[in-house]
Amino acid sequence: RAPMALIAGPCQMESRDHAFDVAGRLAEICRTAGIGLVYKSSFDKANRTSLSAERGIGLEKAMEVFADLKKEFGFPVITDIHTEEQCALVAPTVDMLQIPAFLCRQTDLLIAAAKTGRAINIKKGQFLAPWDMKNVLAKINGSGNPNALLCERGASFGYNTLVSDMRALPIMAAMGAPVIFDATHSVQQPGGQGGSSGGQREFVETLARAAVAVGVAGLFIETHENPDRAPSDGPNMVPLDQMARLIDRLMAFDAIAKA
Amino acid sequence: RAPMALIAGPCQMESRDHAFDVAGRLAEICRTAGIGLVYKSSFDKANRTSLSAERGIGLEKAMEVFADLKKEFGFPVITDIHTEEQCALVAPTVDMLQIPAFLCRQTDLLIAAAKTGRAINIKKGQFLAPWDMKNVLAKINGSGNPNALLCERGASFGYNTLVSDMRALPIMAAMGAPVIFDATHSVQQPGGQGGSSGGQREFVETLARAAVAVGVAGLFIETHENPDRAPSDGPNMVPLDQMARLIDRLMAFDAIAKA
Amino acid sequence: RAPMALIAGPCQMESRDHAFDVAGRLAEICRTAGIGLVYKSSFDKANRTSLSAERGIGLEKAMEVFADLKKEFGFPVITDIHTEEQCALVAPTVDMLQIPAFLCRQTDLLIAAAKTGRAINIKKGQFLAPWDMKNVLAKINGSGNPNALLCERGASFGYNTLVSDMRALPIMAAMGAPVIFDATHSVQQPGGQGGSSGGQREFVETLARAAVAVGVAGLFIETHENPDRAPSDGPNMVPLDQMARLIDRLMAFDAIAKA
Amino acid sequence: RAPMALIAGPCQMESRDHAFDVAGRLAEICRTAGIGLVYKSSFDKANRTSLSAERGIGLEKAMEVFADLKKEFGFPVITDIHTEEQCALVAPTVDMLQIPAFLCRQTDLLIAAAKTGRAINIKKGQFLAPWDMKNVLAKINGSGNPNALLCERGASFGYNTLVSDMRALPIMAAMGAPVIFDATHSVQQPGGQGGSSGGQREFVETLARAAVAVGVAGLFIETHENPDRAPSDGPNMVPLDQMARLIDRLMAFDAIAKA
Repeated sequence: RAPMALIAGPCQMESRDHAFDVAGRLAEICRTAGIGLVYKSSFDKANRTSLSAERGIGLEKAMEVFADLKKEFGFPVITDIHTEEQCALVAPTVDMLQIPAFLCRQTDLLIAAAKTGRAINIKKGQFLAPWDMKNVLAKINGSGNPNALLCERGASFGYNTLVSDMRALPIMAAMGAPVIFDATHSVQQPGGQGGSSGGQREFVETLARAAVAVGVAGLFIETHENPDRAPSDGPNMVPLDQMARLIDRLMAFDAIAKA
Repeated sequence: RAPMALIAGPCQMESRDHAFDVAGRLAEICRTAGIGLVYKSSFDKANRTSLSAERGIGLEKAMEVFADLKKEFGFPVITDIHTEEQCALVAPTVDMLQIPAFLCRQTDLLIAAAKTGRAINIKKGQFLAPWDMKNVLAKINGSGNPNALLCERGASFGYNTLVSDMRALPIMAAMGAPVIFDATHSVQQPGGQGGSSGGQREFVETLARAAVAVGVAGLFIETHENPDRAPSDGPNMVPLDQMARLIDRLMAFDAIAKA
Repeated sequence: RAPMALIAGPCQMESRDHAFDVAGRLAEICRTAGIGLVYKSSFDKANRTSLSAERGIGLEKAMEVFADLKKEFGFPVITDIHTEEQCALVAPTVDMLQIPAFLCRQTDLLIAAAKTGRAINIKKGQFLAPWDMKNVLAKINGSGNPNALLCERGASFGYNTLVSDMRALPIMAAMGAPVIFDATHSVQQPGGQGGSSGGQREFVETLARAAVAVGVAGLFIETHENPDRAPSDGPNMVPLDQMARLIDRLMAFDAIAKA
Repeated sequence: RAPMALIAGPCQMESRDHAFDVAGRLAEICRTAGIGLVYKSSFDKANRTSLSAERGIGLEKAMEVFADLKKEFGFPVITDIHTEEQCALVAPTVDMLQIPAFLCRQTDLLIAAAKTGRAINIKKGQFLAPWDMKNVLAKINGSGNPNALLCERGASFGYNTLVSDMRALPIMAAMGAPVIFDATHSVQQPGGQGGSSGGQREFVETLARAAVAVGVAGLFIETHENPDRAPSDGPNMVPLDQMARLIDRLMAFDAIAKA
């Protein structure tokens, strides 16, 4: 089986300069490690805990930056969409569309995303059993798009906590779609800080190791040169300067898992 | 404190005739019981488990029927919306907009709903702690709309099951918004039937009694003259001919709770 | 159906004087309210969070006090046992033996308790589904003792939290045993204070109302004249001087539930 | 860090012949693989779901067999105890005592086990947060026994299901005790078959891989030459003829994890 790929980038696209900075360093890390990179950023954080939280640079500007990043670094890019209209707007630029976990049951959004013909990474809802992703997958495939990926990012476990059930990975893989493990949002503590979500960055490697050993097509890890100053998901992003070592370790497990 | 109100109706608006039928019988039941009725139906079920599931009669047709129902029966009506655009389209007709549980964190949808000036019934996400509804409520109130209601409809509890934490009712009431208990979706078993969600109709009264005794501003109960043939939520809707007796019993508890 | 009974008392038997004090006041409250009382205290807290926590006055001394309390006040008494040996030692004195939740699957303990012929109140394990109490009940009944009661006290819900699933009450009642709702331990936060368990006394009435409205044979509520100084379960015990009013309110719901 | 060890054997000691059979094959497998073996069997299954379920050959007989197994194969052995009295009875023969998960909060049992001076493997209760094992560990260490191991075996996740939170492994390791992952009971479905517990043998390798990649001192895997005919835990035991290949794969992950 093919070695795993990496979906990575800063949670939000903060600015053109910031995007180029992080992308350049990530591209270098992945080239050195020999792992395929799909660069990820959100142009809009539509589901922030608070009304006043920062939401990103906007769709139009983000698409320009994505196009330039692709030209510069040659990697494919992925972004998340939140309305049907956005699907057609981002599809000419991005290579992969991402369905947010809260929205994984919105039929019209799934269909609109599918119709773009782009690959679709579907985050599994925190409220869904792994076997129920079969119905979600069928909405994409049944709309004529065979290129869906299924992404585990934790299941609700009491209040303000998620738990990663590693059984979800083989259960979803048996549906025939590549399975991604999101090690960043799996350590999120939803609402855990009152006006924003908390996170447990210290467990990113723990869960990533576990998922890679079980076997995944790809890992999703958000990263930032200074997570504590990031506008969103800071508590669960990995510092950029720790990515190289982290990826090396995980690739060693991946090699065994795929042997 | 005021006696509780009832939000009730068939899950989907199936047809003009069906709507008038159920509405007529419900209006009569509520008049006899002396309980205020807000008539509820969905014009579109946007988050069905399967792609092939029936979705409703559509927004435009539903608004005509709602307008006629209001003229005929004099009750206020509520429907759920799933996109920003729908908010302005339904607001001239309906008295109350409902935010689906899966969408309770979508900031733009909340703002668009708030901007209509209509009352907003926000279903608490199955993935949210009751105290985290404070942030959701602030998105409505912070957009200039003071008329939000908070609705408990169960929390994720393992896979394919919800649990109703009665502590959520006083926790949300302390935020200053009227609290509704949705006795229909709280007994849902998400994805529990493979291609559709299951439900435990037999526990609607159990959970409704519990919630009313704890104290609520209103109850949400979907009903149908023949739930087993309803296009959606059949397993958890209450047969229409059992509503009168159910409401009587619940009103007795409400009277004690409000004494 | 018969009105509900009350199982109440301080969590631990602290001393003869303390026991007589609380028992006297509780007996008076229950006589006034017209509710049957079963007086409860533990002679040993065998499963404290910490090694250094206080554990009670011991079996022998407690039996003397129980015997004297019964003579003085005429009520039946209940205590919890943790080993097979204790069953025969407490049975001559106490009217009802209680199986702790953690121990509800220990076959030999259940059999030893059953063999005493006394009534057995079995706390449902935090790790058990309500329908699985059928097997536990069968161990008592199958040992020749028909007098088992089933007691709901919360189910594990993520970490350090319990949730009370009110559906458990009718599910267990359908097994033919009287069902008790433990409003004290249902608001426990296991391990929630690091070296001891926390609790949410403010929700005792919330959950008790809910359970009584659903319908129970009895309520279990621990009480203390000064919970914050109690050696165990302080955070979830109800102050003794609030018991009269609480019981009155709950009896009003019980009357409706049994009508 | 040292390579992981294996705690393995059939769930119950069924007979002398059966024990020798399985032990011989396991010893051979572990010698070939180069992994240390602690042979495990229960002499009594004290917490069976049903009264009529088989419980094992009894303490006295089991100790004779354990002694002979040790003489024959030279490996250390472990068994689980359920009462204080049993601790002193098994300690002369077995090398390691195991505290069952349901009993991990029973102070007297923990003390009695600790006092034997033997190593103590404490299963984490399905109802406990990983950080709460600190208090449990302190009961052993505070009784003068420094040789405790902490064992993850799943946490309650809704009804009839457990989930393995891999974060528990580093959390418990930080307490300074060796951490064991029980891949057999973590895939148990408590009460899942009505009168007995079900299990998902097909996920033993999934969870074991995950745990080993995260890093453990040892793995606990029950095995049987014909699990479907085993008197207990059949649904989650690994067939003996699959153990060699399973261990090989897991040791490859262990080598990376300890590099």
